[in-house]
Amino acid sequence: MSKLTSEIIISPSAFIGIDEGGIVSFGSGQPDLPPPKEIFQHLESRRLFKYGLVQGDEKLRGALSAQYPNSQARDFVITNGASEALDLVFRSIYQKYGSVKVLICRPYYYSYPPIVSLAGHTPVYTDLKAGKIDLTDFEKKVKDVKVVIINSPSNPTGRVEELSTLHEIERITSKLGVYIVSDEVYCDLIYGRENYLIKGDNVITINSFSKTYSMCGLRIGYLYARDPEISHGAVDIKTHTSMNTNTLSQEMALSAMQVPRSFITRQTQIWMERRDYIYNGLVALGFDLWKPEGAFYVMPKIKNSRQVVSELFYQHKVIVYDGAWFGAPERIRLSYALELAKIKEGLSRIKEYIAGKEDWLL
Amino acid sequence: MSKLTSEIIISPSAFIGIDEGGIVSFGSGQPDLPPPKEIFQHLESRRLFKYGLVQGDEKLRGALSAQYPNSQARDFVITNGASEALDLVFRSIYQKYGSVKVLICRPYYYSYPPIVSLAGHTPVYTDLKAGKIDLTDFEKKVKDVKVVIINSPSNPTGRVEELSTLHEIERITSKLGVYIVSDEVYCDLIYGRENYLIKGDNVITINSFSKTYSMCGLRIGYLYARDPEISHGAVDIKTHTSMNTNTLSQEMALSAMQVPRSFITRQTQIWMERRDYIYNGLVALGFDLWKPEGAFYVMPKIKNSRQVVSELFYQHKVIVYDGAWFGAPERIRLSYALELAKIKEGLSRIKEYIAGKEDWLL
Repeated sequence: MSKLTSEIIISPSAFIGIDEGGIVSFGSGQPDLPPPKEIFQHLESRRLFKYGLVQGDEKLRGALSAQYPNSQARDFVITNGASEALDLVFRSIYQKYGSVKVLICRPYYYSYPPIVSLAGHTPVYTDLKAGKIDLTDFEKKVKDVKVVIINSPSNPTGRVEELSTLHEIERITSKLGVYIVSDEVYCDLIYGRENYLIKGDNVITINSFSKTYSMCGLRIGYLYARDPEISHGAVDIKTHTSMNTNTLSQEMALSAMQVPRSFITRQTQIWMERRDYIYNGLVALGFDLWKPEGAFYVMPKIKNSRQVVSELFYQHKVIVYDGAWFGAPERIRLSYALELAKIKEGLSRIKEYIAGKEDWLL
Repeated sequence: MSKLTSEIIISPSAFIGIDEGGIVSFGSGQPDLPPPKEIFQHLESRRLFKYGLVQGDEKLRGALSAQYPNSQARDFVITNGASEALDLVFRSIYQKYGSVKVLICRPYYYSYPPIVSLAGHTPVYTDLKAGKIDLTDFEKKVKDVKVVIINSPSNPTGRVEELSTLHEIERITSKLGVYIVSDEVYCDLIYGRENYLIKGDNVITINSFSKTYSMCGLRIGYLYARDPEISHGAVDIKTHTSMNTNTLSQEMALSAMQVPRSFITRQTQIWMERRDYIYNGLVALGFDLWKPEGAFYVMPKIKNSRQVVSELFYQHKVIVYDGAWFGAPERIRLSYALELAKIKEGLSRIKEYIAGKEDWLL
């Protein structure tokens, strides 16, 4: 999409990569902060222009295994972002088990249902309560599936699951022989407690360098599977469907991992300030929303969300995402991965827009 | 695989990314020549760290469309190498038509059958005659399929199809409503005539920057579909399965395209010298093989090819690929993408190995 026209916007892909003057975008979930400067070293090495190992550079997988207790480099597969990691995991599960049911918490990251379906599986849903897992419903539905996807901190809800919930999910799924695909790409964007790495032989952790190190465009992520059949299966598929992940990005990811932890904690401070600012601002405008505990999203209620997305964009040059894209109609999702001045400007445009529509917020 | 042990080698993935002292590798098909130096510009731009358009950078697609007559930037999708382009095309065809039959010329690039199968389709085969398409068999089998894969110049045969054959295939498939997936990644490595771009509304061209510009590890390729449903379908899938292709590689590909054509013609000269050297060398050793007309592979006949691959590797530190991996048992594939001195050393080790086994060459 290159120019503003007044068509109906029916998916986030209309907004991805958009770059027009005057727009305030609460859309795409990508940090506006710079990546660590250290990653621009050693990029001219001839080695990087050759095919690399399909499972990923040994040094990078070694550095990752040092971060995950009891893991080994061979448990990791480096991928084109968390997206390809998810795609490979579900295709690998299809190769091993055929078509299975996959339990998804709703609201969900919008790619989960299509990734699951494209791999040949059937998504089923458990609805979150106040943005968090409803264990009663979860326990009922998990009996009928082979895989559950957990995403804490969550995109789009911004919520972080309780430790007791995660422990209970570990216990139930392990007993039932159900895989947990734990998407922890926001593990370093968390404001209350430290991230809890979900554990167990049945767990496949998905992660990425995109959010922590502001490297979204480079598409560098990974999967960490305790079940070697899943990681081997993923490598077998990737050998044909994309081969090694981009060697330059892998080199840059390895450099990023050597940056002091203070790089991350300084960023978290910035995210918290923005979180407080947008949360308080939306509450002041009368919105009903969950307080974000991680990631960089808020998901306020609003009626006619589809119309709101179009009108905010075409009339006020503000990008927000329709909650319906995440399985949450009558909500919108705002990313607050932009500087305070822009958040302020965006909120002021939203204020102008909703004047007279206060009953839409109930 | 990090150390030489004497296991049976059953797939090329055992060799990919291997880097051990003293080995002469006729294995992986990647240029040893350097990429153009111009590609290392502008890589620190903040823009490159943001998500890009899923279908690929507009400038890069614009530059590509200028190379293909009557095409437009929107007909192209930039992918993680030709591999992902193929994967997306076949998944896109599955979304549109469900499971179909796909005609593959045998010997084939080893990823074709798994890519077709993983997407839910069924591969069927037509056997090449002297390394080229047998039109009689092709015409019989094409009636029963929805897609054919053409790969000229070919990996693994090194052969280039006759213009009359390609014209006839354009005619038949267009009449039958059969898609041609034309994998032209070796279009710039051709020694007799210029590459012929296969044409028609039913054609999906696959290409890559890997071979022409020695950028294999960066994984940058593309598809060019005349049928917009195929390109849209591919973008819809890629939105979830990998998002934009690595932004740095796209920037480097764009710089590579601005390099004068003499960069390519100088390289072709090198490839021809190597082609002549290895072809004459193998003929002198008594091998029966097709003369390569493009790409950088030779495929001599040899009995017990599986044993040959293992013994050459473990006893003589020479990597060659088993023809069986390409649907051609009793042959081996040698890539000659390495400098003359190494080709010479490799041939001398092969000579030593086959001494006394001359009857294997018949």
